[in-house]
Amino acid sequence: MPTSTQIQLIARPVGWPTHDDFRTVVVDLPDLAPNQVRVANEFLSVDPYMRGRMNDVKSYIPAFRLGETMTGGAVGRIVESTSPTHPVGAVVVHDLGWRDVAQGDAGAFRVVDEIPGVPNSVFLGILGMTGLTAYVGLKYIAHLKPGDAVFVSGAAGAVGTAAGQIARLEGASRVVGSAGSPDKVALLTDRYGYDAAVDYKQAPIREQLADIAGDGIDVYFDNVGGDHLEAAIDVMSQGGRAALCGAIAGYNSTETAPGPDNLVKIISRGLTLQGFTLGNYAHHFPEFAAKMGPWLASGEVVHAETVVDGIDNAVDAFFQLMRGANVGKMLVRI
Amino acid sequence: MPTSTQIQLIARPVGWPTHDDFRTVVVDLPDLAPNQVRVANEFLSVDPYMRGRMNDVKSYIPAFRLGETMTGGAVGRIVESTSPTHPVGAVVVHDLGWRDVAQGDAGAFRVVDEIPGVPNSVFLGILGMTGLTAYVGLKYIAHLKPGDAVFVSGAAGAVGTAAGQIARLEGASRVVGSAGSPDKVALLTDRYGYDAAVDYKQAPIREQLADIAGDGIDVYFDNVGGDHLEAAIDVMSQGGRAALCGAIAGYNSTETAPGPDNLVKIISRGLTLQGFTLGNYAHHFPEFAAKMGPWLASGEVVHAETVVDGIDNAVDAFFQLMRGANVGKMLVRI
Repeated sequence: MPTSTQIQLIARPVGWPTHDDFRTVVVDLPDLAPNQVRVANEFLSVDPYMRGRMNDVKSYIPAFRLGETMTGGAVGRIVESTSPTHPVGAVVVHDLGWRDVAQGDAGAFRVVDEIPGVPNSVFLGILGMTGLTAYVGLKYIAHLKPGDAVFVSGAAGAVGTAAGQIARLEGASRVVGSAGSPDKVALLTDRYGYDAAVDYKQAPIREQLADIAGDGIDVYFDNVGGDHLEAAIDVMSQGGRAALCGAIAGYNSTETAPGPDNLVKIISRGLTLQGFTLGNYAHHFPEFAAKMGPWLASGEVVHAETVVDGIDNAVDAFFQLMRGANVGKMLVRI
Repeated sequence: MPTSTQIQLIARPVGWPTHDDFRTVVVDLPDLAPNQVRVANEFLSVDPYMRGRMNDVKSYIPAFRLGETMTGGAVGRIVESTSPTHPVGAVVVHDLGWRDVAQGDAGAFRVVDEIPGVPNSVFLGILGMTGLTAYVGLKYIAHLKPGDAVFVSGAAGAVGTAAGQIARLEGASRVVGSAGSPDKVALLTDRYGYDAAVDYKQAPIREQLADIAGDGIDVYFDNVGGDHLEAAIDVMSQGGRAALCGAIAGYNSTETAPGPDNLVKIISRGLTLQGFTLGNYAHHFPEFAAKMGPWLASGEVVHAETVVDGIDNAVDAFFQLMRGANVGKMLVRI
């Protein structure tokens, strides 16, 4: 009988999660019912938002259930099918998460067209929800327009590497970013099209950002929160717009941290801070994919990813993500 | 020779201003040149924004100059004129500030139509920049729509008393506010149309607001900042919008204060915080006045003001404003 190896959450972490909060199970898979598929996963997505779902609090998406398999984005290939719309060999994206083999009704799996020369992992990253997050934040939250100067915090992350490249292709005059190591900073300017970048672990971001902000920042894409938001407000131009996408700085804190000390500048400079989660903006996916597909195929956009091999290392991959050990999208390859 | 008694700023306050920061001068007035007017002021405006202008820092409006007469809104009646467009007896609004008699080119004085039964002080308050600030904040910053639940902080102030009434007339389902004394709280519900109000000096605003916020706040009009903004974010509904208009809580601080500890909710709830100053929105005045004039004439809106008599008490009036001793618009009657 075929089996599926799966990772389950068994305890709600307080502060930083540990291995004791997870377990691995091997599940027997029944025969397919009509109109179902069995999928051999190729890549699993691990994402910052998952930390929030490990807490049992009311949020925009429900908490993970204890004793059940971690859900999340995954891409794989159909190996068995009773569905006329989902043939064996097709590549599919789904949300069944941390398991090596996924199985269920065909409707839960979205067939995608492979792009020649580009790995299927992009459907979890720059050509998936990650890239869409960057696009929506820039275009529909911060209302990026040609000529704007853009700052992206956490710029070496999955959303950040996408945001910098999208901003440039959408006409930004200048794109600067922050990241957490000298290597990442170098990648931002060498590979991901940033004009300047700083290592926020070397000195206070507030001082460093002032040095690279030029005449001021029109659009701020915030993946970090905390001191980064404060630093950005300092250098934002009259009428500047901030898209608040993530606040990874505080995700593992057991205490709340005070906010920026300079919010009064929001008034004097007429700034707008808008938070968003992708749920309300998923309808922009076709518009986004129609741009990003060709950008990837032509090489105008390069995808960034950090890959960990093996389902048994999924929890470690998540911990690495939380510590910022990744560049670009963090993935588990099965 | 006619004279004008004027109040001048002579030192930049550090923290709370004192009488030593001001002086009174009596100035001889020359004969009128062609196309000029002399105006006997009836009311002078004292406003929270003036505190910011006493500091020598770059802001959206320039700092007051030391040794010059305090500028600001005023309304009076023309007593002498060499202008064909500005006849003796006309009521005019101008920005020449803290003086009993104002004189200058006619173009600096805007003729207004008196409203029967309504004092001319309204042109400095609810039918002037104060009312326009409330209107713009609700309509063009927070995008108030019928059915929204609204929270106004500093609700007994000039902008706050206007905002509550405008919100109701524009279709808000519920309007709640905060103020700094039991008397003010009573006025908000008895006279200015608030459904509920709390005294923020009695208990933490965060706790009290949660009690009166009902199913959540859609629109927050912020005159206070600090703990009030934090409290509002706690109770804002998905997609809520905050218009940040003032932060009087911090105007006399010599140190910066940390911001709200709950900004992560901006992301999860898709909130928008937008600051504004009236400069960029003054073109909405005709639309606003076309509504507010009839509202005042019919009694649908009542104006709120606290009047101090005598130009010699202008500085005291400003101090009272800073301490929150006023209800509604703070004015000096000449």
